[in-house]
This record gives sequence, structure tokens and C-alpha cells, in this order.
Amino acid sequence: MSVERLVRALPGADLVTDADVLVGLGHDEAEWAPAGKALAALRASSAEEVSRAVAACAELGVPVVPRGAGTGLSGGANAVDGCLVLDVSRLDRVVEIDAENMVAVVQPGVVNDDLKAAVAEHGLWYPPDPASAPWSTIGGNVATNAGGLCCLKYGVTRDYVLGMEAVVGGPGGAYGSRVRLGRRTTKGVAGYDLTGLFVGSEGTLGVVTEVTLRLRPARRDAPRTVVGAFDDVVAAGRAVAGLTARGLVPAALELLDRFALAAVEDWKHLGLDPSAEALLLASVDTPGTSGDEEAAAVAAAFRDGGAAWAEQSTDPVEAEALFQARKLAYPALERLGPLLTEDVCVPRSRVPEMLERTERIGRRHGVRIATIAHAGDGNLHPLLVTPPGDDAARQAAQAAFEELLTAAIELGGTVTGEHGVGLLKRRGMQRELPLGARAMQKAVKDALDPLGLFNPGKVIGDDPDL
Amino acid sequence: MSVERLVRALPGADLVTDADVLVGLGHDEAEWAPAGKALAALRASSAEEVSRAVAACAELGVPVVPRGAGTGLSGGANAVDGCLVLDVSRLDRVVEIDAENMVAVVQPGVVNDDLKAAVAEHGLWYPPDPASAPWSTIGGNVATNAGGLCCLKYGVTRDYVLGMEAVVGGPGGAYGSRVRLGRRTTKGVAGYDLTGLFVGSEGTLGVVTEVTLRLRPARRDAPRTVVGAFDDVVAAGRAVAGLTARGLVPAALELLDRFALAAVEDWKHLGLDPSAEALLLASVDTPGTSGDEEAAAVAAAFRDGGAAWAEQSTDPVEAEALFQARKLAYPALERLGPLLTEDVCVPRSRVPEMLERTERIGRRHGVRIATIAHAGDGNLHPLLVTPPGDDAARQAAQAAFEELLTAAIELGGTVTGEHGVGLLKRRGMQRELPLGARAMQKAVKDALDPLGLFNPGKVIGDDPDL
Repeated sequence: MSVERLVRALPGADLVTDADVLVGLGHDEAEWAPAGKALAALRASSAEEVSRAVAACAELGVPVVPRGAGTGLSGGANAVDGCLVLDVSRLDRVVEIDAENMVAVVQPGVVNDDLKAAVAEHGLWYPPDPASAPWSTIGGNVATNAGGLCCLKYGVTRDYVLGMEAVVGGPGGAYGSRVRLGRRTTKGVAGYDLTGLFVGSEGTLGVVTEVTLRLRPARRDAPRTVVGAFDDVVAAGRAVAGLTARGLVPAALELLDRFALAAVEDWKHLGLDPSAEALLLASVDTPGTSGDEEAAAVAAAFRDGGAAWAEQSTDPVEAEALFQARKLAYPALERLGPLLTEDVCVPRSRVPEMLERTERIGRRHGVRIATIAHAGDGNLHPLLVTPPGDDAARQAAQAAFEELLTAAIELGGTVTGEHGVGLLKRRGMQRELPLGARAMQKAVKDALDPLGLFNPGKVIGDDPDL
Repeated sequence: MSVERLVRALPGADLVTDADVLVGLGHDEAEWAPAGKALAALRASSAEEVSRAVAACAELGVPVVPRGAGTGLSGGANAVDGCLVLDVSRLDRVVEIDAENMVAVVQPGVVNDDLKAAVAEHGLWYPPDPASAPWSTIGGNVATNAGGLCCLKYGVTRDYVLGMEAVVGGPGGAYGSRVRLGRRTTKGVAGYDLTGLFVGSEGTLGVVTEVTLRLRPARRDAPRTVVGAFDDVVAAGRAVAGLTARGLVPAALELLDRFALAAVEDWKHLGLDPSAEALLLASVDTPGTSGDEEAAAVAAAFRDGGAAWAEQSTDPVEAEALFQARKLAYPALERLGPLLTEDVCVPRSRVPEMLERTERIGRRHGVRIATIAHAGDGNLHPLLVTPPGDDAARQAAQAAFEELLTAAIELGGTVTGEHGVGLLKRRGMQRELPLGARAMQKAVKDALDPLGLFNPGKVIGDDPDL
């Protein structure tokens, strides 16, 4: 395929063909994932243009790799050789906020925090809050079924997507057809849940061009923050399991180990005390005296779980700094070298064991592993840090990465809680899911994208058993 | 097909071939939906037996119609000619309650209320509460993505299904293969959400033989009940819209019109005052003083919305009687004649208009329509009552039924909020969904059930445009 044919097929389109720019648009933030060489990129300015581009690509046999802000951590938005990178980040309009029905309709390029700000003006709240919320787009959040800190109490992206418009191909019409899926009511069972199927499908079934989202009323009061410091990280994990066993469901329950804390403190000087081996941060947003009781119960559970100290933060500046630290941990650690990022999820009772295994695996392979975690969900982010340019360390990290995935599977968990499979977790997913389930996924993919045009090789692509 | 071949293919199976019993097992509670003549029925005693039966049916070309308690209201479990009715109601074991992780694993025949009782012993709660909860099974709830009263705050069945085992065919393996879908962690994005796809698929993709469910901590206190009485039903609808606009989300917000109230009172003598044209019942379960404030705000919203009176019920017996009345409305009205049951769902702001149109449509066709509603969700149940044996009335009711579906679509809603498409809402769904979306559904069905063995003709079956 020559790029000229694509240019001719898309007259007037703002196609990027500069090699350097293409490299930048050809990968997400999964530094370890391989990226192919795109033929071109299109910064689409309308759904109509997405539609035309998909039709042209189908005609020419050019794979389509959709892309939002490129903040993904699994390589899901990485270019494949000869593809068109279809960048929808300029489709960034909040189309409608229907306050009466607590619904928002947005284009896929709207940044998560911008949506939050827009609906807040109407006294509403869009809960999903990945740490990338200041940069990541709703389209990307939908593609990976993004989670975040407050999923524990408020659920993940899928729980908020009522409907969408997508550019599809195959049975939905000729490639490039725009199809409306789902609805805008809170309940609805008219046919299969194709909306839910598209959420988390990482751009392999079509290109989402509009999303209809459910909202919640804004929370009236600032949440309380409860902090617990632990002398070892596994003890912190036991406190998490203890919390769940007591039926406590705070809005967020986060873990940072010493390594992550130190990286943030070295960078941002927030005044964190990095003497603890692990911190647990809980956010309690139940209003009134019930919230006070819940915060006290969380602190008590921390202490019973062996915390060196645990208290409710009475200083809002300090509380803010603690959650800031949590959100900054990833970029802070990135400063130390390329990160290989996990997002395994295990049943909450197995969190201590997963933390223990993480330590063991790190030691065995001589890999430095920092852990941050949405601990209350059992969703852990072991971050494998390697010195830049050290090939042996890189190989050791890769071996440790696969062992961590296997450990999560062995503990009854999954290889990916919220980042998606992309390229990095394909092998892990193949180990996690039985052959029958993978074959069913492949059948769905083949049925809805018979040309294999959309983001080929990602998620279920490249399965040697199929 | 002769039944003898099926009997020979399933040695030792407890096959039902008695014609009268087959008629009983060959339909659900949608009295108006057509039912075919089953070849036989199997009351399966194990997943293994389900697997063998599906394999034999695939071999012999006998359609499989799965069935739970038969409480469905859309004909989804109705027999088709020459089918095997596969009754899974004897698979009624709670396999595991994992209190630490707030997860239950159950067989599909477990009755909803029995599950609630079993998990309550562990201080846990399974929220979905269709009015059929004392009789309907989890398998049936999963098949229709059942809702209920407390969906407003706590979501529908899909929000609680983490994983399942299903007997499938086609790409998942030979027909009769048992496949595990999903996971048991609260988060997980390893591949397409096939679990969510199966929820609400009404047995058209396979037979669910085990379900892994998320649970919540039990609520500590009895919820408060707030009652408002209105002089006309549309005003009650306006009060509902007003409540949502204020950001109030009670645990339940139900509507009963005078017709429904009177039917319950005539039957059960609960001491209800049937002088109001409509009652709104709200259940507030926010604990502590915040709950007191919320209940007061709900009562105020009722009054501002034009309630003749509104108050928080301080008498728990009275409060219980009111919600009992809501749950008994359906059987109470069924005593008056065959019911044609709607479960349209519209955006909450359109509830008043939908109620207005319901009245107009009833008047125009001379059909008595009682309305009960999960009003807070915009999910209305107009119940069309016809005298037994009156053919003209029956035809009028059918015309009114289709007009109500069309009205819901025109108001931005859906033809089915929680009962499923089954047989009764196929035409409505065809009007609601664009052709592309229906074609995609059909492609998914064909991919996962290439023989068309599972519950043929239901949901997406019988679409003249495909």
C-alpha cells in the first residue's frame, strides 16, 4: 500500500504522514510494548470523517488503529505496520448535559476531568477516575473499561455507559456505517448488550464516535480521609482483607508502598513521611454522623490489622496531599526508568498473598518493584522499574512480569483489572481464559469485523491456539 | 422428529413426555404470548445432564428452550414446536458463599429470595428484587437482566453477575461444551465481556448452569418509607421528575395508580385508603440523620409536586403494607382477567408524558389500563386488563399495547426495561433499534449458535428485515 492511494481516497482530510510525528502517534504509554510503523494518521474532526476514513481503509485493506490521548498502559493504541492511526482526540465536544435525567452525551475525545468539570456545574458527578483523568479521554476510558480510585463504591466505566454511536463494518452495514447502540434510559433489555460488549473491546470492534453516560448527583461534602501506616506491605494487605470482611466499603481504599512514596516525595516534596513500609489511604464519603462512624471503623480496622498508626486526617491540605501522592506515584516512578506496569486483580482476601508473591518474585529476579494499588478492589499495580539501557534488567523484568500474571491467575484473579489486554497481556489472557471462551471471543470479533480491520492483533489477536 | 429418538439419545434422563405436563412447562406467565408444542421436557438434575441434553439435541436438530420457574412476562420461556424444554429449576444449590470477598456462586434454579436469605446469614445482601423474587430463579433473572424496586440506587442483575458457567455450542466447542465466562474479582477486562452479553440474552446463546454473583454488605437499619398521595397520576409523574431533578436517589420510588390499589385492597384488605388517584412510595435507606434529611427532602418534593398529602410513615407495619401492596399489585390485577403487561422505560423527565399518553391510549381503545411503576427509573408497567373470553377487547388491548411501545420509543425510551423481549416485544424492538444494531445482534447470535439451537425465534428471531 502506498500512502498516496490513501490520500487520494480521503480528499480534504488532514492526514499526517511525517515520519517523526507518526512515531509519536504510533504508541501509547506502555513503553515496553512493540509498536509498528503506521502508514498515516488522521486527526479526525467529525464522526462523518471517521466514517469516511473507515470506509476508505476497508476498501484499501488498511488496518485502523483508533487512538485517544495515548495514555494507555498496555499498548492497545500502538500502531501496526501499514495502518491508519485514527486519532479521535479532536472530537472533544460535550454534546449535551441532560441534568433532569442525569445523562451526558459526549464525543470520545473529551478528557475525563473536563467532563467532570462540565457536569459539576449542573450539580452532577461522573465517578470513574483513573489516575490519568487529567489527560485520558472518555473514548479511551470506554475502550479499556477504565476504573480508578472510586470503583470500590461506585463501579467502573461500563457501569456508566448507557449507549454509544460507533463506526462499524460487516453486519452493521458497509464498513464506515454509523450505528447507534444502547439507549439513554437507566434500564433497558431490548436485545443483546452490544454497548457493554464494546466497552473494554479496545477498539477491536469499531470506532466509538459518541458516548451516552449516566451521571450521579454531586457529593455534598468533601470526603473524609483515613490514613494507616504499616511496617510491612503484607500487613497492609491483611488490613485490606479485614476491612472487606467487616463489610466496610469506603469510596476508595488505596495502597502505596515505601518505594512509591519515596519517589513522589523526592519529586514533589509534599511533606510525606516516608518511614512507613506501606500506607493505606481510605476515602469515606458517607454523609453526616454515619460517615464519622464509618471513618472511625476504618481507622479501627487499620489498627486491628496491625497499623503502626492510623487516624482520620483532620487537615484537608494533608488529606489532599496524600491522594495527590497516590495519583502522582506513576509519573514519579517513571522518572526512574522505563516502567513495566501490571494491573492484576485478585479476590480481596488474596491481596496479602499477592503482595507477598510480588515481593518474592521481585527478589528472585532482582527486579525493583514498586506497588501502588486500588487495594479495596484487589486491583494491584506492581510497577517494575529498570535502569534505562540495561538489557539484562529488562529481560529479568519481563520474566517477573509474566510470573506476576501467573500468580494472579493462581490466586483466582485476572491479569488485567482496568488497563486492558492490549499487547502486553495477550499471553497472560491466554493463560487465564479457557480455550472455549477465547474461541467465543474470536467468533464475536470475526462476526462483527469480518475483514479484521479494527486494531488487529490486539486483545484476542495472535492466539496460537485459535 | 419422534420423541423416541430423543429418549434413546438420553438414557436415564427424567424426560417428561406427558402432553398435559408439557403444556404446563411450555409457557411462562405471559398469557398473551403464543406457545408451541414441545417434544419433551427435561428436568435436569446436574450441569452434566444439561450438557448431554444439549449435545443430543444438536445431534438430532431439536431446539432447546431453557426454563427456570416460568415467571417470565414476555414469553421468553415459551416452547417452540418440536423443542426440548430444558428446565433447570432443580439445579437449586447455593454452591458457595464467600463472605470475605462478598461473592456467591449459585446454580441457576436458586430462587431469588432463597439466595437473599442464604447470604443474609453472612451479613450480606443480594439487591436485585423483581416483584417475582419469592418465585423467580437467578437463572431467569440473569436471562432477562431482571430489575426490581431497588435498581434505582443499586442497579440491575447485570451489575451483580461477575461470571458464569454456560453450556454452549459452536465456537466454544461442540454443542454441549461447558464454558466458564467472566471472573470472580470485582474488576476485570481480560477480553470481551461475554458474561454481560449472556445476561439479558434470554437463553438464546446457551444454557447458564452456574452464576458467580457480587454481593453487598447487608443494610443495617430498616429503610424509611415516604408516601405521597396524588389527585391525578400525571401529577405523581411530575413529582417523580422533580425528585430526580433535585438529585434525590432513594433506594426505591414506586408508583401505584388507583386501579392497582383497589385491586390489591379488594383482594387482601390491607387497610389501604384507595381514595387517591395515585400513590408514590419511596424507600430511603441512607443511614442516620442524613437519611432523615433525605426522607424529609423526598416528602417535600412530593408536596412541591402537588401531592394531596405526603409523609414519612412512622408505623413500620403500615410501611410494610404499602410495599406489600406494590408487590401484590400484579397478582391482584391478574385475578380480574388476562393481563397484557408492559415494561416500557423512558427518561425520568418524560414519565409524566408517558403516563398521560397511557391514559389517552387506554381511553381511545376502550382498554382498562392499571399502572404500577418503578417510577424513579422511568420504568412503567401499564397493565392492560381484559375480560376473559372477549375477543374484541383482546384485539383492542393488543392495538393499545403496540401504541404504548411506540409512545415509549417516541419519548426516547425503550420497549422493555426489565422483562425482556421474549415473543411479545419483538416487533417493538424492531421499531426501537436501527437495522444496523439488529444485524449486529443477529451476527453475534449466528456466531455463537450457528445451528440456531438455543431458544429460536425469541428476542432477535423473526426479524423481517434481516
